[in-house]
Amino acid sequence: MNQAASAEALTLAESTARAMFSRDSAAHALGIQITEIAPGQATLTMTVRPDMLNGHRICHGGMIFLLADTTFAYACNSYNHNAVASACQIDFLVPAHEGDVLEAHAVEQTLSGKTGVYDITVRLAATREAVALFRGKSHRIKGTVIESLHDAGDAAQK
Amino acid sequence: MNQAASAEALTLAESTARAMFSRDSAAHALGIQITEIAPGQATLTMTVRPDMLNGHRICHGGMIFLLADTTFAYACNSYNHNAVASACQIDFLVPAHEGDVLEAHAVEQTLSGKTGVYDITVRLAATREAVALFRGKSHRIKGTVIESLHDAGDAAQK
Amino acid sequence: MNQAASAEALTLAESTARAMFSRDSAAHALGIQITEIAPGQATLTMTVRPDMLNGHRICHGGMIFLLADTTFAYACNSYNHNAVASACQIDFLVPAHEGDVLEAHAVEQTLSGKTGVYDITVRLAATREAVALFRGKSHRIKGTVIESLHDAGDAAQK
Amino acid sequence: MNQAASAEALTLAESTARAMFSRDSAAHALGIQITEIAPGQATLTMTVRPDMLNGHRICHGGMIFLLADTTFAYACNSYNHNAVASACQIDFLVPAHEGDVLEAHAVEQTLSGKTGVYDITVRLAATREAVALFRGKSHRIKGTVIESLHDAGDAAQK
Repeated sequence: MNQAASAEALTLAESTARAMFSRDSAAHALGIQITEIAPGQATLTMTVRPDMLNGHRICHGGMIFLLADTTFAYACNSYNHNAVASACQIDFLVPAHEGDVLEAHAVEQTLSGKTGVYDITVRLAATREAVALFRGKSHRIKGTVIESLHDAGDAAQK
Repeated sequence: MNQAASAEALTLAESTARAMFSRDSAAHALGIQITEIAPGQATLTMTVRPDMLNGHRICHGGMIFLLADTTFAYACNSYNHNAVASACQIDFLVPAHEGDVLEAHAVEQTLSGKTGVYDITVRLAATREAVALFRGKSHRIKGTVIESLHDAGDAAQK
Repeated sequence: MNQAASAEALTLAESTARAMFSRDSAAHALGIQITEIAPGQATLTMTVRPDMLNGHRICHGGMIFLLADTTFAYACNSYNHNAVASACQIDFLVPAHEGDVLEAHAVEQTLSGKTGVYDITVRLAATREAVALFRGKSHRIKGTVIESLHDAGDAAQK
Repeated sequence: MNQAASAEALTLAESTARAMFSRDSAAHALGIQITEIAPGQATLTMTVRPDMLNGHRICHGGMIFLLADTTFAYACNSYNHNAVASACQIDFLVPAHEGDVLEAHAVEQTLSGKTGVYDITVRLAATREAVALFRGKSHRIKGTVIESLHDAGDAAQK
């Protein structure tokens, strides 16, 4: 997708990401940052904090999922059409620990009609070792990201 | 599992859950509460907070995953043998909204050798409507939950 | 589903299964047999034949998948609305060998709008040991099983 | 993997595939053919036959799975270490019809210790359209493909 992306599509992807991110409470709460956006693609990072550890004192798999799922969301919403996850599958390969910087990269495998499939790889930024492989299926719903945010804003002001 | 659980196994499951919960930073950060524990089973609840919403203003799928994954963890660790998730799969059925109380219930489908499969259903507590279906595969690792916590505690004091 | 199924729904499920089975070339090629049908449920059996073995001389995982997937199809089509699989996930627990009789049982976990989720357990008939756990997501498409077969039959005669 | 594969590794992968294929009853029954083998990679083809159709007269999803799963097997066994599938996940994108030639290509996403993850894409050979996306998790077991075939041959003669 990325190679052939027009400047216009790239600008739309970036604007859409900015609009989503401004309201993405969960991403902010987790300290997730966007490092790259393109049509159908996204790269996000998150640092493993003490409050992300589980009872075994390794990073909660759910936190790794959250980073992957968020990256998936930015990739599948990059056309400014609202899309949500209908199903996700994750394989955990190696544990992550407190202080690790995790980098998640999403690529679009297929997008046809309302349905897309995206693969997200979560890596340790320091060593590039794969921590988890995530596959998400997206479903396009009504509305656009940027306009719906305006609408939601209007509604909130009433 | 539950029906045939001896009083001893039930006590062990409860003690193990208490030990895990005392150190489960992620669960505390999300306001997750344990409502029932038995060998191979667990029921946990979580209320959808504003900071759990995504850019579409519905509960982040990753937060629903976190609840399901945490419930899975309590079920598969209930024998006091350390176990971690090796793979998870989730299907999202209907969205959850701010203020919804979500209840996740885990049942053990199979446990053989080091590997188990657990099914977790996340429901809206108010209506019992299923929000998500989660299937997790567990892998037993070295150590026990209660002893490893002691060990970790000792290590931390040094 | 089954408990509350009216006699009418049960009859429809059985008629639908008969109509599907009469045209199910793959099921016949594999020697699959239907042992029970109810609304949202199905039980099918298959005996592992020499031509179902893989290069390791155990039953090809794909053959176990086929049995599970077929059982899924009979369960999700049991309302006489055409439905197809959109995604499937299978965990292989223990190998099956030549001569083993496999029994697959499908239960409906959820059905809402056009989408359903079904869990299929494949067991060794002799010992009831679980061989594989399968989860399938169905999507309702146009047409009904019994009418579409009539239509297809008409078309074939022209 | 492929780029860096030594001539020796490539030869081993090809020999291993030949040894597996000579005993792969299921592949032969389905008319599956191998078109390319490399370390961690495989490309196989299958033509949709009338006996591969389901009750809706489209190619049985289980047959598409079988092709993908077989391709997965050749990729994950390409190092001549016996490996079997522990879990598989498939998303069906578009239906395939009688006479379609399906091409499945497997790539290794990760291989660490005894566990690997492989992605297989099944396409219509004529149009390159993706029919299904498959992700398989492999588990290395005892023995080697080529030696175990010898052993099995010896055992069979007794």
